[in-house]
Amino acid sequence: MEPDLSLLDEYLADRGLDGYLVNAASTDSTQRYVSGFDAPDPFVTLYTPERTSLLVSSLEYGRAKKESRADRVARLVEYDYRELAAEHGSAEATARAVAAFLDDEGVESVATPDRFPLGPADTLRERGVTVEPETEDVVTEIRATKTDEEVEHVRNAQDANEAAMRAAETLLADADVRDGTLVYEGDSLTAERVKEEIELTLLRHGCALDETIVACGADAADPHNRGSGPLRADEPVIVDIFPRSKETKYHADMTRTFLKGDASETVREWFELTDEARTAALDAVEPGATGADVHGAVCDVYEEAGHPTLRSDPTTETGFIHSTGHGVGLDVHERPRVSLDGGELKPGHVITIEPGLYDPEVGGVRIEDIVVVTEDGYENLTSYPVELVV
Amino acid sequence: MEPDLSLLDEYLADRGLDGYLVNAASTDSTQRYVSGFDAPDPFVTLYTPERTSLLVSSLEYGRAKKESRADRVARLVEYDYRELAAEHGSAEATARAVAAFLDDEGVESVATPDRFPLGPADTLRERGVTVEPETEDVVTEIRATKTDEEVEHVRNAQDANEAAMRAAETLLADADVRDGTLVYEGDSLTAERVKEEIELTLLRHGCALDETIVACGADAADPHNRGSGPLRADEPVIVDIFPRSKETKYHADMTRTFLKGDASETVREWFELTDEARTAALDAVEPGATGADVHGAVCDVYEEAGHPTLRSDPTTETGFIHSTGHGVGLDVHERPRVSLDGGELKPGHVITIEPGLYDPEVGGVRIEDIVVVTEDGYENLTSYPVELVV
Repeated sequence: MEPDLSLLDEYLADRGLDGYLVNAASTDSTQRYVSGFDAPDPFVTLYTPERTSLLVSSLEYGRAKKESRADRVARLVEYDYRELAAEHGSAEATARAVAAFLDDEGVESVATPDRFPLGPADTLRERGVTVEPETEDVVTEIRATKTDEEVEHVRNAQDANEAAMRAAETLLADADVRDGTLVYEGDSLTAERVKEEIELTLLRHGCALDETIVACGADAADPHNRGSGPLRADEPVIVDIFPRSKETKYHADMTRTFLKGDASETVREWFELTDEARTAALDAVEPGATGADVHGAVCDVYEEAGHPTLRSDPTTETGFIHSTGHGVGLDVHERPRVSLDGGELKPGHVITIEPGLYDPEVGGVRIEDIVVVTEDGYENLTSYPVELVV
Repeated sequence: MEPDLSLLDEYLADRGLDGYLVNAASTDSTQRYVSGFDAPDPFVTLYTPERTSLLVSSLEYGRAKKESRADRVARLVEYDYRELAAEHGSAEATARAVAAFLDDEGVESVATPDRFPLGPADTLRERGVTVEPETEDVVTEIRATKTDEEVEHVRNAQDANEAAMRAAETLLADADVRDGTLVYEGDSLTAERVKEEIELTLLRHGCALDETIVACGADAADPHNRGSGPLRADEPVIVDIFPRSKETKYHADMTRTFLKGDASETVREWFELTDEARTAALDAVEPGATGADVHGAVCDVYEEAGHPTLRSDPTTETGFIHSTGHGVGLDVHERPRVSLDGGELKPGHVITIEPGLYDPEVGGVRIEDIVVVTEDGYENLTSYPVELVV
């Protein structure tokens, strides 16, 4: 895919900078997006409105020429890397090679991602290169707006996600209850066992295994607790799956909360309220609305029902203790924000809507859909049903 | 595990710096090592010889208190994050909260990893904090020397690795040959199919799925080409597996080269020569020897047989075109180097030995073991046989 970086061109022109410099492995999605190249170790991408150039190790040279979207691929050894490494060590040698590479490209000033590495930046500055970390996250903003092709990538990852969620729900539904804990085919049904089922299913659907959350009881009251151990009956089990397509590297993200056995009055109320909050948030999603508006719709529902939120009490550890959602793409958490400081939503934004309630005394309930903002509202990429009791 | 950071204490004392500051997600292994905490989004760890303090989002607060090795866990909201974010955006707000956090901790000067993020570093410097990216990679050097517990983690990952390699070899051995390509149970046996078998096996052994290389023919001539498509008979197939334990996050790494059918004279020579280079390298591994010595032993074998190496020709694209090995631990590629600029090997270093020969006309051959340097030599953690023809 050839990304549309015209906003970056404007950014560079406004600031009188020659180019945009990335120094990272392809695990950094901005690197992957700008370079069009997938490498496990850090390499350098220089983008200018005229062309894109890569500086890579000899090891990656052949593949970079074939696979990247660069107009030019240079090698570290072309800039005396070996001699410099022998004298100054590899970090300094690489930084100096980058300086020579920029000089070669006629580039004297660059914008960089906010998280560009400090050591290499200091070395470039010592050599007179202007290095400005860009504070407007222009590339992450560009990445937030997906092309139809990118939305298709997310849709495909979500298809795998729904298959994995189905596999997890089936395990819970088919489990027996013994002494208050779930038993499957004679063995205690653990969070680990359900995660394995999820991961095997994702793998068969061409997705890589990011972390998966299968959390029960107090574990589920901590939104980032991945969960472990035997699953219990009559308690909500949060299943949060966020796979990455191995082919396209795009993510999906979905959460459902299941309960085997009898739900308490409180858990039923929480579940219904959370589904109401989800619906309220979805109703608020349209171009021109802000992520803050959508987050506010969720906080309204919870606060009116008497639950604390981070809006009503920034230090609360119970109630609605995270933001409503986030962008999803090459990163599972990316722009735009769907939170107190969330900005304007635009067509092509892919976001999650994931209200939830948490209290160690009760457990946790979360329901998460993934949607794409359209010209006149949104399309929900999630088709998985919303039902508590399995 | 409580890491021994006394070398870091010395480093800080030598430079008159108050502490060591990390700003990264736990995907950054130095962050994971110093904080003892596993979080998917960036957070801040401040290490001083007196204590370790974390600065995290409210979302991670509960888990950080439970799971990290920090003496203190602070939250961004304690430093007016919300108000700052509303006015300056989240990046600047976080950076300012970190400045206030350091002030709180009585810290005015910090060393950081070389790849500490530039934007936050600039903000700290603007506020009078001394920020020095540490050029000696002291923490990565500390990480290079494994405790017995860490070696055990690598050993367990290697056990999973050998099971996966066995599964891959079995697929190749059981395949039939039709029109020069491999066929398994009626279907064309592709690199993708073999990778799936490897990944399913790793998963069942508690390992996560990093990339896997199953490369045949010209694909195999490019050391980082992951390989794709139908596998062919009479051509070497490089299988390079580097799993990460999902529990401990430590890696293993092993490569074997298999051939189904009849090996050409050249491929047989390459394989025998590469095994000879492997043996020569292993013979050179002992405390006090350098990574350069071990790499030199491999280059000697190849150059004496008339093959180019990056030592004899830094720009060659055929022959031995990578270094002999690398450290393995929380990162699959970490210190020490086993290359032209490799330094002294010490007991507890876990390294790979992976000579190989490459030429698009022939394909590629690589054999890789993983070993731990001991007081009197090395222990090979690899028990998988070295045989070409399956």
